[in-house]
Amino acid sequence: MRGFYIVVDLGGTNLRVAALAEEGILELRRWPSIAKVEAQEGLCLLKERVGELKEEGARRGWRPMGVAIGVPGLIDGEGLLVHSPHLRAYEGVNFLEELRELGMPLLLENDANLYALGEGFRGAAKGKSHYCCLTLGTGVGGGVVIGGRLLKGAQGVASEVGHMVIDEDGVQCYCGSRGCLEAYASGSAILRMAVEEGLEVSSAKEVSELATAGDERAQRVFQEMGRYLGVGLANLVNLFNPEMIVLGGKVAEAWPLFAPRALEEMASRAFSYAAKGVQVRRAHLGDEAALWGGLSLLLGLEDGE
Amino acid sequence: MRGFYIVVDLGGTNLRVAALAEEGILELRRWPSIAKVEAQEGLCLLKERVGELKEEGARRGWRPMGVAIGVPGLIDGEGLLVHSPHLRAYEGVNFLEELRELGMPLLLENDANLYALGEGFRGAAKGKSHYCCLTLGTGVGGGVVIGGRLLKGAQGVASEVGHMVIDEDGVQCYCGSRGCLEAYASGSAILRMAVEEGLEVSSAKEVSELATAGDERAQRVFQEMGRYLGVGLANLVNLFNPEMIVLGGKVAEAWPLFAPRALEEMASRAFSYAAKGVQVRRAHLGDEAALWGGLSLLLGLEDGE
Repeated sequence: MRGFYIVVDLGGTNLRVAALAEEGILELRRWPSIAKVEAQEGLCLLKERVGELKEEGARRGWRPMGVAIGVPGLIDGEGLLVHSPHLRAYEGVNFLEELRELGMPLLLENDANLYALGEGFRGAAKGKSHYCCLTLGTGVGGGVVIGGRLLKGAQGVASEVGHMVIDEDGVQCYCGSRGCLEAYASGSAILRMAVEEGLEVSSAKEVSELATAGDERAQRVFQEMGRYLGVGLANLVNLFNPEMIVLGGKVAEAWPLFAPRALEEMASRAFSYAAKGVQVRRAHLGDEAALWGGLSLLLGLEDGE
Repeated sequence: MRGFYIVVDLGGTNLRVAALAEEGILELRRWPSIAKVEAQEGLCLLKERVGELKEEGARRGWRPMGVAIGVPGLIDGEGLLVHSPHLRAYEGVNFLEELRELGMPLLLENDANLYALGEGFRGAAKGKSHYCCLTLGTGVGGGVVIGGRLLKGAQGVASEVGHMVIDEDGVQCYCGSRGCLEAYASGSAILRMAVEEGLEVSSAKEVSELATAGDERAQRVFQEMGRYLGVGLANLVNLFNPEMIVLGGKVAEAWPLFAPRALEEMASRAFSYAAKGVQVRRAHLGDEAALWGGLSLLLGLEDGE
């Protein structure tokens, strides 16, 4: 009887539940996020979705080996969701306890951490032991791998790279601080800067389309975003001395518009020895990164890690 | 025959060579730094100093077990001094090769890393597995311990916390970047800010004496330094989620003048869950921290780490 693994991506927009084996994604199902419903209802839905995939596997003669759940927020070592702007209704919920009745080994991890693990397992950082991964989306998520292991910190909430202050008196960040990397290098930041430039746009994607079409103001926005991102990258280089920094998320699709400026800024600021030792690369796996990350975590569990 | 360990602190002002055993410092000798002489001459002096202590030990019937050398600069994994503003003449020198003839196990480590290890071994962070240590001196050094091990990075030059940018358009830093933590939270920064306030002083110590005596401008300087330091601490909390942050170095002696402001700033910026989980403490061991750190490194070597 062959084994398979279930990975859940508990996003703010979609709920994705995948069945994976080492050779690939066997089945991927997508539903609306549980973000908008009450916690008890959402947990019930979640158990149902996972249960369906478990049964589907059983019908095909597979044995479920475990479930990994990626959550956009701070999770403590016991499985408690401490903080999550995207899943407010679930703050204070202990997912490990609530989902115990699934009757399978269960892992909970920050979604950006899963993304980083996935890129290391099958993506841009394959074979690297020391790397940082940034997801440039609506916000900026971060995962840091040191010596092949996730940086978790004392309580499990480390590597919040998006909330590293790079301009102490800068733009107000939703987190309560000012001048965080997220306030300059996220999709929301690009939209804000574009509006400040007088562009009539309603998404970062539109700004990127305008820039690609030659609009100078839109291009300036991405140059500015790239410069700030470069400051953040320099900090990561000086702090972590990584072999690689992987940039993923929707915003990274605008790579040519910001990456050259970001690399230039990074090189001008970081210690040159460390800056020469780092590769900055686009993520390879897109939406699938977190799913692969979940699988790698579950496989690690089997190895007794 | 009892064993003993030799630890060398290769400072920019002093060269200190100590003989240690687990129970304490057996002998500590101090000479002028080798910073001002040519590399070949300096290495020769260094071998002589270490050799003297080795012989002294032999006279007392002790067996030398190894030498650890703390160096203020970036050292790669092979023992090459890559970058060191305080030991310019030695940049490009491979200390491990040059000192091989000492005929003992030899370890080279960044001095702030040794300081951090020492505070974990016998000082403020004793028993902690996840902590950051900042040495607030002429510059700002940093050592980060994760899961009981030093954060070294891919090339051995990680944890340059002093050169984390916190104000992207801020004060020029000697490292070539702008707005580094060191440019606001070091002794040099305190002196610069005091002069900008119109104080006629020539050292950070004088500023601290004035502040303690009630001078409002001097107090303002420390408040400002504390505020910036707090931004840096918030970044460490969000990135590393440490149990403890230890602040050492000469500037930390002015603790009451800056620490309350720093803690307040940190708490207002970092994720509250992680901020509540961290203790910020003064270093306990002063000048001896790096010596104890060297010993702990040498003892770890014996344990086969």
